[in-house]
Amino acid sequence: MPKTIPADSVGLVTPQSLHFDSPLELDCKRSLPAYDLVYETYGELNAEHSNAVLICHALSGDHHAAGYHSMEDSKPGWWETCIGPGKPIDTNRFFVVCPNNLGGCKGSTGPMSLNPEKNKPYGPDFPIVTVKDWVRSQARLADALEIEQWAAVIGGSLGGMQAMQWSIDYPERLQHAVVIAAAPKLSAQNIGFNEVARQAIMSDPDFHKGHYYEHDVIPRRGLMLARMLGHITYLSDEAMRAKFGRELREGKLNFGFDVEFQVESYLRYQGQSFVEKFDANTYLLMTKALDYFDPAADYDNNLARALQRAKADFLLIAFTSDWRFAPERSREIVKALLHSKKNVSYAEIEAHHGHDAFLMPIRNYMDVFHRYMERINTGQ
Amino acid sequence: MPKTIPADSVGLVTPQSLHFDSPLELDCKRSLPAYDLVYETYGELNAEHSNAVLICHALSGDHHAAGYHSMEDSKPGWWETCIGPGKPIDTNRFFVVCPNNLGGCKGSTGPMSLNPEKNKPYGPDFPIVTVKDWVRSQARLADALEIEQWAAVIGGSLGGMQAMQWSIDYPERLQHAVVIAAAPKLSAQNIGFNEVARQAIMSDPDFHKGHYYEHDVIPRRGLMLARMLGHITYLSDEAMRAKFGRELREGKLNFGFDVEFQVESYLRYQGQSFVEKFDANTYLLMTKALDYFDPAADYDNNLARALQRAKADFLLIAFTSDWRFAPERSREIVKALLHSKKNVSYAEIEAHHGHDAFLMPIRNYMDVFHRYMERINTGQ
Repeated sequence: MPKTIPADSVGLVTPQSLHFDSPLELDCKRSLPAYDLVYETYGELNAEHSNAVLICHALSGDHHAAGYHSMEDSKPGWWETCIGPGKPIDTNRFFVVCPNNLGGCKGSTGPMSLNPEKNKPYGPDFPIVTVKDWVRSQARLADALEIEQWAAVIGGSLGGMQAMQWSIDYPERLQHAVVIAAAPKLSAQNIGFNEVARQAIMSDPDFHKGHYYEHDVIPRRGLMLARMLGHITYLSDEAMRAKFGRELREGKLNFGFDVEFQVESYLRYQGQSFVEKFDANTYLLMTKALDYFDPAADYDNNLARALQRAKADFLLIAFTSDWRFAPERSREIVKALLHSKKNVSYAEIEAHHGHDAFLMPIRNYMDVFHRYMERINTGQ
Repeated sequence: MPKTIPADSVGLVTPQSLHFDSPLELDCKRSLPAYDLVYETYGELNAEHSNAVLICHALSGDHHAAGYHSMEDSKPGWWETCIGPGKPIDTNRFFVVCPNNLGGCKGSTGPMSLNPEKNKPYGPDFPIVTVKDWVRSQARLADALEIEQWAAVIGGSLGGMQAMQWSIDYPERLQHAVVIAAAPKLSAQNIGFNEVARQAIMSDPDFHKGHYYEHDVIPRRGLMLARMLGHITYLSDEAMRAKFGRELREGKLNFGFDVEFQVESYLRYQGQSFVEKFDANTYLLMTKALDYFDPAADYDNNLARALQRAKADFLLIAFTSDWRFAPERSREIVKALLHSKKNVSYAEIEAHHGHDAFLMPIRNYMDVFHRYMERINTGQ
């Protein structure tokens, strides 16, 4: 519980919600007849509506990117390091919008929402949504908020992929795209890890083919395994060594299968606590959106051609120890942008935290990000 | 089915078995009153008994390292690339012995064996065995075969760890240690992956706390997940890209959760077929042996001091794209050996196959391995 909220926080925030009742056509050829998007905003929209920034969240993220929901909150939003007064995404200058994606489990329409056709939760009948679908739904949110053009669309990991897709699908509607710790598409290894996570969930007897809500259970074991595995891929080998080494929880080997090493304890705890706050069907959808992301696919598998449409300026950031989406993957994007003669800044940040680095207050990262954001012209 | 057995194969082989009826004291302070070791041999033991080579297997390996069990066998032993007439471990020169480790599921005493105290399979009551325990049991096998000193003890991965441990625990009993794609101890990341695999098995409702034999089921889903995950760590990102890329099995996205990408198909197949041939309790034991391996622990965490005892000459081999036990890990061993003034040859082989490279007929690898083995003096 924060006794006092830090001065560089956006402070207490309240989620908002918008209902959309014209159908949204999806990549899978199905459509959502109506849907809600829950979102948070920080800072003030200026008179010209020219200082709005869209934050796109990653796999297990949501609309609560910064600030606190109450004085009792023990933790702020997931990107508190980067959003707030005086921070890289400076709420003294920018009006920040962060929605929960469609298919999510934190308020936007998703598998846990009521399927109007069946009068029960969508569950596994919720359509598989793509990054393009999300961007389309976010464009409607922009319309509703009367934001013609974003000063920037920003995201890390899967969020960065949305920023890229924005630049291709709505070139006129953003001035800048900030793509952090992302990749132009997943590798076979990335897909492999996602597939193990999905199999863990789907093979859990409590999954009931996705209809577990009706059975009043959750596929706890599967979701826990998926999260444990995810966590290993978010951290670098180096970060895990620094954090846990081979330390034994009780200082000695017990020759049994209970927790022995600190790293086991950490992973089990992460897995167990995730189960309480995240929906398994949403997890499945998010991994599919990752696997399917491939903006070059519509352009003869030529990423440079896909990005030719973009009018935004780009900032790409990668972290040296990120092996989930390694710097080489960001460089592929940079190369394609250069090939298409776009304005691109690229920073490769020395950091031992692995993929999770994009959430950390790493000095060089904050500096690069902050300087770039400062140069953005909000017309005032 | 091989119509004809290749000329450079050891040909048809038959496993042998030895019963040991004096108790084996284990690191966990329990003891095995009696046990069997199943093993295979290739080549001929010379009159001086000076040309014997011990092969130690890795996590899912066994005693069947080379040759065929029958003319109907579709596949040879797991290290057919390296063992045979004219191959690096040349059966024209060497008498090769490969046992199945204690705790295994291919004939040596393990969880599936009868627990004489309870008149049912050991299951989870089988003691957690360590690399040191295995080496101790292998020394008894050497005694039984009247092999006073091995010309070489050789292994890849967990097998290489056994070769290292041999050099420390029985310095007089081996002339050479060949340690391939190994590490001086597991990293937190390595342990993390093992822990996810164990949790997958142990959380499977069909695991029944390890007593699944009595319920006439096997923890199929958990073991499958463990193997799928293992496979990702055996291959490099690069190898997976070369092997599968992002190829779709049906050439298009289906917006469903059935197999879509080739890599998913491969991993599911690997997982499913493993379940038919491997025991889950053994898998658990093998991962624990890996986690516990830490020869420096008995020597103030000083690996050089541990290896000071060794009298063998060493060959260390690592593979550039191996991220499970990366070249840096082999170099730690090399450094410790140099520090202790041991004879050590080290080769870092350029290979894109990842950890699995140690099983592959990679030209430079075969050459280095072959030349080293040729120099071994078998006293004839």
